[in-house]
Amino acid sequence: MHNLKSWFLLREDITYLNFGSFGACPKPVFKKYQQFQLELEQEPVLFIASNGLKYLAHSREALSNYLNCFKDDIVYVTNPSYAVNAVAKSFNLKEGDEILTTDLEYGACDKTWSYYCKKAGATYVRQHISLPLQSKEQFVEEFFKGLSSKTKLIFLSHITSSTALRQPVKEICTIAKQKGILTFVDGAHAPGQIPVDLLALNADMYTGACHKWMMTPKGSSFLYVRKELQHLIDPLVISWGYHALFPSASQFLDYHQSNGTRDYSAFLTIPAAIDFMKEHEWEKVAGNCRKLVQENADAFCKLLETVPLAPVNDNFILQLLSAEIKTNEPEKLHDYFFEKYKIQIPVMRHGNKVYLRYSINAFNSQQDLDKLFAAICDIKNTTGFIE
Amino acid sequence: MHNLKSWFLLREDITYLNFGSFGACPKPVFKKYQQFQLELEQEPVLFIASNGLKYLAHSREALSNYLNCFKDDIVYVTNPSYAVNAVAKSFNLKEGDEILTTDLEYGACDKTWSYYCKKAGATYVRQHISLPLQSKEQFVEEFFKGLSSKTKLIFLSHITSSTALRQPVKEICTIAKQKGILTFVDGAHAPGQIPVDLLALNADMYTGACHKWMMTPKGSSFLYVRKELQHLIDPLVISWGYHALFPSASQFLDYHQSNGTRDYSAFLTIPAAIDFMKEHEWEKVAGNCRKLVQENADAFCKLLETVPLAPVNDNFILQLLSAEIKTNEPEKLHDYFFEKYKIQIPVMRHGNKVYLRYSINAFNSQQDLDKLFAAICDIKNTTGFIE
Repeated sequence: MHNLKSWFLLREDITYLNFGSFGACPKPVFKKYQQFQLELEQEPVLFIASNGLKYLAHSREALSNYLNCFKDDIVYVTNPSYAVNAVAKSFNLKEGDEILTTDLEYGACDKTWSYYCKKAGATYVRQHISLPLQSKEQFVEEFFKGLSSKTKLIFLSHITSSTALRQPVKEICTIAKQKGILTFVDGAHAPGQIPVDLLALNADMYTGACHKWMMTPKGSSFLYVRKELQHLIDPLVISWGYHALFPSASQFLDYHQSNGTRDYSAFLTIPAAIDFMKEHEWEKVAGNCRKLVQENADAFCKLLETVPLAPVNDNFILQLLSAEIKTNEPEKLHDYFFEKYKIQIPVMRHGNKVYLRYSINAFNSQQDLDKLFAAICDIKNTTGFIE
Repeated sequence: MHNLKSWFLLREDITYLNFGSFGACPKPVFKKYQQFQLELEQEPVLFIASNGLKYLAHSREALSNYLNCFKDDIVYVTNPSYAVNAVAKSFNLKEGDEILTTDLEYGACDKTWSYYCKKAGATYVRQHISLPLQSKEQFVEEFFKGLSSKTKLIFLSHITSSTALRQPVKEICTIAKQKGILTFVDGAHAPGQIPVDLLALNADMYTGACHKWMMTPKGSSFLYVRKELQHLIDPLVISWGYHALFPSASQFLDYHQSNGTRDYSAFLTIPAAIDFMKEHEWEKVAGNCRKLVQENADAFCKLLETVPLAPVNDNFILQLLSAEIKTNEPEKLHDYFFEKYKIQIPVMRHGNKVYLRYSINAFNSQQDLDKLFAAICDIKNTTGFIE
């Protein structure tokens, strides 16, 4: 795996264990990005209003093949937060309605749903999930305790952020479908880390980031909405595509693709990122990364005097591992890792707990985790940051 | 002026008379853009969550000096459409309320206000402005015929898009202030084309594009809101900054700056763009461009068998000139200019009229307009595109 490090632009002097937050872009994909930007500047009108739109269609086609969905059922958005905001703003919440989710979700999405629920007099039900997880069955059972006759939508991460757990999304979408409840999956961490088959998953709506595990430049993500529901989602930015003078075959695209002037080159790099993954047999690479993550789980948890948050296998643990850490100063601890040891690793608050999370991608190796473990020992022995 | 052409990346083979739509970025500014992107990729967490935020603060400081406002009263947004959507979504419209505007505004903004007015049962009053304009006084008098006791906000372009007219914004803001009516100015075409002094202008809210006449890369714009009103504007994308765990000194920044993961390098190039303008004495350059625009106004209008849309002076006509053109096929006419003559010039529908608009910036010259005029003659003589 070590030889893949040279494909990335990451600084040599830093032990980069936080791929999870913002990804990292391989050199050929980054080059493509900047080439599109140059092409844009050479003839802005031709690019933005004509050629770029053709590249955009080609890009959506490549991504829809990769995700197994119809090409006009995905639109590009800047990031999953944008997608969640578009859906939450449009979702016709009424007083008394409930959105069912877990208490393990991403904070920015919690804020979004809480904001729109409060406006409507609806409730955002954050069903408690007991950690450590025992099994998919136990998760599903506990999750549906939050269900009521008022539940209008289930909102769920495919893989959580601070706790880094794969949630049994397919199982939950299947049950929700039987019960006639809509589902919206936040797959910020999914595509590129695990195969995502949107038709098989059967979620009604799905957002994913391409700038994380698919490794495109930042600001490249998508929103998938099942065709029958697309008419429910208004654009977050109303622009020319809303009641377009010359509508295309897809109102969904017209509504959400036209967003005012911007550099949309990041969206166009998706085919190059998919090619890069194919060329480098990314399923193997991801498998090796998971192995490294999982093999080190016990040592990591022992050092932190805790236990893994779930059974350590592909059902729950992929290229990210979080463990609870006892610290009163998570922000200072993060900075200390970086300044003293040149280790970039997130120390994440979630509710009243704090988690330390390592990510493993192609450029990481056992040595990186050994450095991390040595640093943790040192911090425990020499500072008061870890209790 | 001709020597400035080499500062831009624009293709040599095209007569580029549509700077107005998407601007064009000088080489040193573009270089800076791509350097920021490289720095981001070398350590994404360090850049996005730390160093980039310092650059962002520096950039806002430079822009606020340039626009003469307090630095924490502007936030960066992707484009003016985004800013108008953020304000329109937040503006607490009630049934019966009115938004007063002109019938010369930008179509995407008309769509946005119409959408939010319809939701609230409010009315978007597009006051008719007679063309050609006669004087500022006549404009102001006609505009305020649309005022009523229900008017809650005046929304107005600083310089219009399809008709390319500078509107008497300062005069209107002053009267509105006396009447206690809020004002929101869409300055998409203003900064860099004319000096913008936000404190002197006295608008309550103002959005402007940096990627047009200030020449930054695309996706770089700002929203200014007077401090006393900032609490009224909720973020368009609710994210970490909404009810932030560690609030900064400015809730306005917390709310609107945090938008999920994106490449915000375009915002960071604003100081470089301002420096570029200073180095090249841009007020002189802009003055020369205006002169070229204005000197050619009569010939252009005569060719199109029409008259200028306003008195040809700096009160109304700057680096853009629009004239009515009689054509039934504006889109085809645009493509014909481009394919047959390699002239990039917009042919813009507005209501039931069509306008042909030329833009002049540093890289343009009299030859470009001569080519345009020859092409118009040729099209008139050889096709049915122009009646």
